[in-house]
Amino acid sequence: MSKMLWGGRFEEAPSKIMLDYCCADDLKLDELLVPYDITGSKAHALMLARQKIVPKQDVAKILKGLDVILENWKSGKYHLKLELEDVHMNVEDELCKRIGESAGRLHTARSRNDQIALDMRLYYRDWLDELANSAIALVETLLKLGNENKETIMPFYTHMQHAQPSGQWCSCQAAGFLRDLDRIAQARKRVNSCPLGAGAGNGTSFPIDRKMVADLLGFESVSENSIDSVSARAELDADLAFCCGELMMHSSRVAQDLILWSTAEYAMVELSDAWTTGSSMMPNKKNPDPLEIMRANSYIVAGSVSQALSLGNGLQTGYNRDFQAARQPVYNALAITAKSLVVLAGILESMKLKKERMKELAKEGHTTATELANFYVRKGMPFRQAHEKAGLAVRKAIAERKKLEDVLEGDEKKAASVENAVKANASQGGCAPKQVAKQLKLLDVELGRAKTQAAEDKRLKQNAEKLLNNEVKKTGGLSA
Amino acid sequence: MSKMLWGGRFEEAPSKIMLDYCCADDLKLDELLVPYDITGSKAHALMLARQKIVPKQDVAKILKGLDVILENWKSGKYHLKLELEDVHMNVEDELCKRIGESAGRLHTARSRNDQIALDMRLYYRDWLDELANSAIALVETLLKLGNENKETIMPFYTHMQHAQPSGQWCSCQAAGFLRDLDRIAQARKRVNSCPLGAGAGNGTSFPIDRKMVADLLGFESVSENSIDSVSARAELDADLAFCCGELMMHSSRVAQDLILWSTAEYAMVELSDAWTTGSSMMPNKKNPDPLEIMRANSYIVAGSVSQALSLGNGLQTGYNRDFQAARQPVYNALAITAKSLVVLAGILESMKLKKERMKELAKEGHTTATELANFYVRKGMPFRQAHEKAGLAVRKAIAERKKLEDVLEGDEKKAASVENAVKANASQGGCAPKQVAKQLKLLDVELGRAKTQAAEDKRLKQNAEKLLNNEVKKTGGLSA
Amino acid sequence: MSKMLWGGRFEEAPSKIMLDYCCADDLKLDELLVPYDITGSKAHALMLARQKIVPKQDVAKILKGLDVILENWKSGKYHLKLELEDVHMNVEDELCKRIGESAGRLHTARSRNDQIALDMRLYYRDWLDELANSAIALVETLLKLGNENKETIMPFYTHMQHAQPSGQWCSCQAAGFLRDLDRIAQARKRVNSCPLGAGAGNGTSFPIDRKMVADLLGFESVSENSIDSVSARAELDADLAFCCGELMMHSSRVAQDLILWSTAEYAMVELSDAWTTGSSMMPNKKNPDPLEIMRANSYIVAGSVSQALSLGNGLQTGYNRDFQAARQPVYNALAITAKSLVVLAGILESMKLKKERMKELAKEGHTTATELANFYVRKGMPFRQAHEKAGLAVRKAIAERKKLEDVLEGDEKKAASVENAVKANASQGGCAPKQVAKQLKLLDVELGRAKTQAAEDKRLKQNAEKLLNNEVKKTGGLSA
Amino acid sequence: MSKMLWGGRFEEAPSKIMLDYCCADDLKLDELLVPYDITGSKAHALMLARQKIVPKQDVAKILKGLDVILENWKSGKYHLKLELEDVHMNVEDELCKRIGESAGRLHTARSRNDQIALDMRLYYRDWLDELANSAIALVETLLKLGNENKETIMPFYTHMQHAQPSGQWCSCQAAGFLRDLDRIAQARKRVNSCPLGAGAGNGTSFPIDRKMVADLLGFESVSENSIDSVSARAELDADLAFCCGELMMHSSRVAQDLILWSTAEYAMVELSDAWTTGSSMMPNKKNPDPLEIMRANSYIVAGSVSQALSLGNGLQTGYNRDFQAARQPVYNALAITAKSLVVLAGILESMKLKKERMKELAKEGHTTATELANFYVRKGMPFRQAHEKAGLAVRKAIAERKKLEDVLEGDEKKAASVENAVKANASQGGCAPKQVAKQLKLLDVELGRAKTQAAEDKRLKQNAEKLLNNEVKKTGGLSA
Repeated sequence: MSKMLWGGRFEEAPSKIMLDYCCADDLKLDELLVPYDITGSKAHALMLARQKIVPKQDVAKILKGLDVILENWKSGKYHLKLELEDVHMNVEDELCKRIGESAGRLHTARSRNDQIALDMRLYYRDWLDELANSAIALVETLLKLGNENKETIMPFYTHMQHAQPSGQWCSCQAAGFLRDLDRIAQARKRVNSCPLGAGAGNGTSFPIDRKMVADLLGFESVSENSIDSVSARAELDADLAFCCGELMMHSSRVAQDLILWSTAEYAMVELSDAWTTGSSMMPNKKNPDPLEIMRANSYIVAGSVSQALSLGNGLQTGYNRDFQAARQPVYNALAITAKSLVVLAGILESMKLKKERMKELAKEGHTTATELANFYVRKGMPFRQAHEKAGLAVRKAIAERKKLEDVLEGDEKKAASVENAVKANASQGGCAPKQVAKQLKLLDVELGRAKTQAAEDKRLKQNAEKLLNNEVKKTGGLSA
Repeated sequence: MSKMLWGGRFEEAPSKIMLDYCCADDLKLDELLVPYDITGSKAHALMLARQKIVPKQDVAKILKGLDVILENWKSGKYHLKLELEDVHMNVEDELCKRIGESAGRLHTARSRNDQIALDMRLYYRDWLDELANSAIALVETLLKLGNENKETIMPFYTHMQHAQPSGQWCSCQAAGFLRDLDRIAQARKRVNSCPLGAGAGNGTSFPIDRKMVADLLGFESVSENSIDSVSARAELDADLAFCCGELMMHSSRVAQDLILWSTAEYAMVELSDAWTTGSSMMPNKKNPDPLEIMRANSYIVAGSVSQALSLGNGLQTGYNRDFQAARQPVYNALAITAKSLVVLAGILESMKLKKERMKELAKEGHTTATELANFYVRKGMPFRQAHEKAGLAVRKAIAERKKLEDVLEGDEKKAASVENAVKANASQGGCAPKQVAKQLKLLDVELGRAKTQAAEDKRLKQNAEKLLNNEVKKTGGLSA
Repeated sequence: MSKMLWGGRFEEAPSKIMLDYCCADDLKLDELLVPYDITGSKAHALMLARQKIVPKQDVAKILKGLDVILENWKSGKYHLKLELEDVHMNVEDELCKRIGESAGRLHTARSRNDQIALDMRLYYRDWLDELANSAIALVETLLKLGNENKETIMPFYTHMQHAQPSGQWCSCQAAGFLRDLDRIAQARKRVNSCPLGAGAGNGTSFPIDRKMVADLLGFESVSENSIDSVSARAELDADLAFCCGELMMHSSRVAQDLILWSTAEYAMVELSDAWTTGSSMMPNKKNPDPLEIMRANSYIVAGSVSQALSLGNGLQTGYNRDFQAARQPVYNALAITAKSLVVLAGILESMKLKKERMKELAKEGHTTATELANFYVRKGMPFRQAHEKAGLAVRKAIAERKKLEDVLEGDEKKAASVENAVKANASQGGCAPKQVAKQLKLLDVELGRAKTQAAEDKRLKQNAEKLLNNEVKKTGGLSA
Repeated sequence: MSKMLWGGRFEEAPSKIMLDYCCADDLKLDELLVPYDITGSKAHALMLARQKIVPKQDVAKILKGLDVILENWKSGKYHLKLELEDVHMNVEDELCKRIGESAGRLHTARSRNDQIALDMRLYYRDWLDELANSAIALVETLLKLGNENKETIMPFYTHMQHAQPSGQWCSCQAAGFLRDLDRIAQARKRVNSCPLGAGAGNGTSFPIDRKMVADLLGFESVSENSIDSVSARAELDADLAFCCGELMMHSSRVAQDLILWSTAEYAMVELSDAWTTGSSMMPNKKNPDPLEIMRANSYIVAGSVSQALSLGNGLQTGYNRDFQAARQPVYNALAITAKSLVVLAGILESMKLKKERMKELAKEGHTTATELANFYVRKGMPFRQAHEKAGLAVRKAIAERKKLEDVLEGDEKKAASVENAVKANASQGGCAPKQVAKQLKLLDVELGRAKTQAAEDKRLKQNAEKLLNNEVKKTGGLSA
């Protein structure tokens, strides 16, 4: 085992069981952090040179070495080793092998505490951008479907009972996901502040320039208080898990609808063969597995919010190793959620609506009784009496096993037709086709805003990348 | 039992066990909603009159009746009855007893689905404002304490081990709570959109004016999609629970610090008698009960986020009665959190810091070894070697049972003094008194922004209240 | 405010806000503990007399005083006061007012730590017995329904898709609840061990007889280690919450089935008017509210397990005030679960099965394809080929929009009939009526065992009560 | 992509994104199930032969083929493929390649639903045995440590404040873990019932012998109801997660104690270098990382119980794909918990107690005030007055900054000595060395019982393995 980098005061080597317990799972996640860790180190090194904390020629060596390691990692030739504990120690050890003593100057004026805080924020920023992009694509799919079905009539349910006929399912789902896009943007803003320079939690006595590092990494701001910079880990983890939790709540609702709609009982939709599976025993089965998994995962992700929060509760102020353990559930939540959004869009795009069945079901359950009551109100009756009167008509229809329309006559019959009921609900936000069209347009405007923001976020990251690469080149590194 | 208002199609009365199961707990929360429900009904009634959906003279009666009920509720003379199911049915039933048939016109063009959505948003808006005000007061306390202790030296911990001496504890805590204030504001914006007019989830065929209602109630916008308006309940519940979860994470961290500091082992603080309790058996005890309860409650509140999310997962689109069950944990989270913030401020204000003990402890644990390593770096040594060298000095100090300073000499000794180590960490966000002072100023600016926002939110609510009262008076009601 | 009983070393009175924060919610639960606290005190006092730790004449006064307080509490004349903190302090204070100085001898050789541990175990033991009784009644209902429907054919679902016809729904549900009865019994055993005598957590220097107290209170054993006795609170809370969690998982499954079955789409069941509600706006609605609430509550209860566990995690060994905060979610879980079991039984007993519709649906979805494949296997074909061949028949049926039977002939047709498929699955535990009958008998045997256990548990509690009352009478108290 | 085994009715191949979403994570867990799946298939095949459902010569081929696959898997030559979905399909496909058409007969009379239920129960049974063995070893360590320290005096804390001197820490921890061993045994009993033969959930029309299969696999019973057999998945998952949750609660308590004891403030223990880590920046640090991770993981595991329960809530009766998603958190909980127990034992065995510091701290905080009060009681004073009087002595000591002993004289002084206070608490379960010794013996008896049970469980599994191997040999397979 190679000697630990923090070995000065230690007489005994770490237990293998402990290394496995503390680092094995973490290392799998750390493997994903390699490019972020190296990018962060480059920015740090450039700053150390500019501030004359480390000689420029050492920094040049460091930059070249880091680039080689990154290339090797990208091509699968370089992997982290458990006995070197974490990504930071691994990269420094590898750098040391490549460039010798100069490598030992890279860790000047920083600690693993601010370094991991930095890596995680860079990493999470990318995840949030991926979530945003997937959510944007999903909303686009929903709005497209909505626009194709502005006139489609389907049942609207309350208490899983037929309530009224409706046609604004797509815009309802889109509205939820658009609020999630706000949540993502708000979490991103909190993440997008640079913690490097906080050291172990007290800052440093070297004359560092934190603003320069932040700019090179595309951060919007510098995270001021140095204790806060290294100890807000669980707080931000929870922010991300929560975004995922809300996204999955919205996804699982769509999933549950589609699972129901594809049962023999509802039969309102035919899922594509490509997005369903069969049974090993029963040749008749066509199962909505991805939707069931999505539903199940919504509870896993919901739980991860409490896990992240609970793990951060009751900890002494400062850095605690506990923070690392929140990464697993949060990473899991991010991966599940991002995939779920893509899967959901794929299913929505490929499924076939059975519109006749939808309309047929919209007529079930006497769903136009409200319109009948409203009709009586317009004739001057107080609503409460009108409700009672319409209720008696429903009872009659049930007793005679007829549709509500069929126990009525004249204007009452007309009022109680499904087509009329849908068209009549023309209040702002109502289910009348005209209103639905208006909503779809408003949602499209909101989507446009989210897309603009996503494009801007991307541009700023790319600008910073260019800036960093230029500086590296100027200082003697390889990056183009 | 009085006949249910929805009784038209029913032949049998509700089971008492069912009423208890479905409504008893809910009714306790509904009791708190009475003023919100009545305010919402007034706005709705005014709009019905203006739009000529209900005759003005009926609306005048309705407004007067509602005011009487509200007055009776305020003076404790009116309470909700279980057999009338919920706040909506209770108020309508009471109104009916007072003004007769006109009462039956109030429910025109609305459903209990949009009505409860409205009540909850009004109620939650007030809770968020209370959370914000309590958090603002707490941050003020923290900044005051911070300003008084800019020069106070205490140990900074990582892994609960002494890491470095420090003095920026207060600003660290304040920074966390200020981000929570952002979270509160963001949740408030999502809540602050008027759902009334969505009906059961499809809108209505009456020519309602949703904008007017929204203005009378001080909402920033109208919640467009009518299904979304009645079914975003669990989503918003989760938003609120999550704000509380983060606030409690930050509170429980302070609580744990203070519990530790008031142990005999740390002895860095003396809690006030007024905020501690004794033991029935052991005369020697002085227990930090409120802080322990705060710590414990942080896990209860964390769990409530998962509860709210999970409960909303996998539900069919539309209104589901399940939504009501999320109210209990969310209400509980709000009440606990709001109280915790007040309690925490009270404890912080009344406690006494034992500054000598703090400084003494800051010297424990060889906490200036980093500064010693930095000293070697300044002499030209690569950091990694400097770290090793400082580590050996620590080992020596441990072996000789001395403080680190006391095994050093000359400039090394000076570098390793606690006073120097604190002052030296003068990087942006570092623990040097000058930096701490700068941070406190920045945090004060942020606090100022939060206060301005809180004042503006209050003004808007008051304006809307005046507007509503004026309209009521004009239309023949009593409100002044 | 009356002086606190632990006031010796305190100079300042407790803050009102603190009392409210620490005690107000707790006191509501403590109110429920009054009879348990008094019973425990009686047993303790009797032991103090027998062991000559407190003079018999003092104990006689104490016993009489406690009985008066209990009577007053039962008749609503006595209530706990917030300023006296908790049930223990309240009862002692009241006792002091009634009998003077002798009251001060009752707390000899005990602490509030072991006292609350005792109260909670007595209280939880009663709750577990109530859960057991309710679960037993529910299983009885299920078995009765099962016996009435041994020949009823309904669809069996996998992935919410029609899988096969079946008739063993009731026995499946009963099997789950019977395992829950095991869980309840196992949790009860852990709870049923007497902690009194552990003091604050170290025992006492008085010559107490813990076995005597345990016998007087009907405990199976004495909880040995005194630290463990006062600090296993969260562990046992979690045990109870977990029992509730599993019971609610099983309840929510039945609830979801019934909600689905009562939709217009499934239409397999008609819920009784007495167990459903209507809509304030839509006269056509009949909503399964209690089932939705049950479904929602299953997530609340699930969350309470994590809350109880998390709250107990990471606490220093000993007594921590945190334990008290777990009571609220656990009490809530117990109350919800106990009610849910009763409500579920009520709904199952009053609902009407639509057997024709059930059979009709059992024929949907080509659910007998497995039997067709098995038929081919019996003719010698490997199963995998047979599965493929039956799958092609299903495709044909789908293409021709026919039932599977109707594209077959002769023996194949016979094999694929629903009646045959059900009868044919005669393997152990299968859905053939004969097998179902056998299962119902086995479940009835298990139920019998649970009932015997419940009766025995009740007998032991009653015996202890008699023993205690006799001792009280002998020692000069009032209890009969 | 190879054709799916359930492909009969499908026209389109599964989407790659769907396969990744549904199967990629699952497959990693399925890889661990290969030996269990193959063992289950062997038992099933032997039964098919005995019952003449499949010709003996086909079964012989199947058995040989399965053994080859298992050998290849063990030597790392065989791995599951994503495009074949799951372990069942993979093994059958591989078998088919090896032995041709006979392989197609293996799936006769079973479904993947009962097959995965079987695999999971076999797998979980092994996990529970591993948990039991690790917990047994940990309790042994604790009892050994306890026996070595029967006379060691340390502070006992309530509210994290010094309460009384004590010496029964080890037996307290052991008592908790021994109850966890009960929980493990109880969960094991529920898992140890054979579901194979339940088919998709309705049994089968083939004349299978479920008892034979159960015996070959060492199950205690046959899981009767076939729907229940395939749908009790989440229930059992929750059972396992809950066992882990309680084990981690107990582990995290020990962890927190040790973290505190190894701070500079407590300084009661020196952790071994082998079980701690250093800092990359601060040469003075020696961090208890594994204990912090253990503490953090306790919240992850606590959350997994709610996840497993929530995921199972509200599902329609039958098999749902959702069940598979619970495996990840449960597997994670099992792996973390099993490792934590081993790590904890390692740390306890290698740490050094600083007994002088312990005793010194036991004298802090006036921890013998209770004994002083008891002394007054023995002189005839009611406890409440005695408590008050002792409290005044404490106040005096605090005012004079002395130890309690040092403001007392004569018998009072003696009563209030730490040595006396410990020895005096000689009540059953108290902290007097004699009592502690008695407890340790009782715990040792309980541990003995757990070990006997573990040995018996192992024997039964080995017997079944032999029986299976013999049958395989007799039927023409390879297993020895």
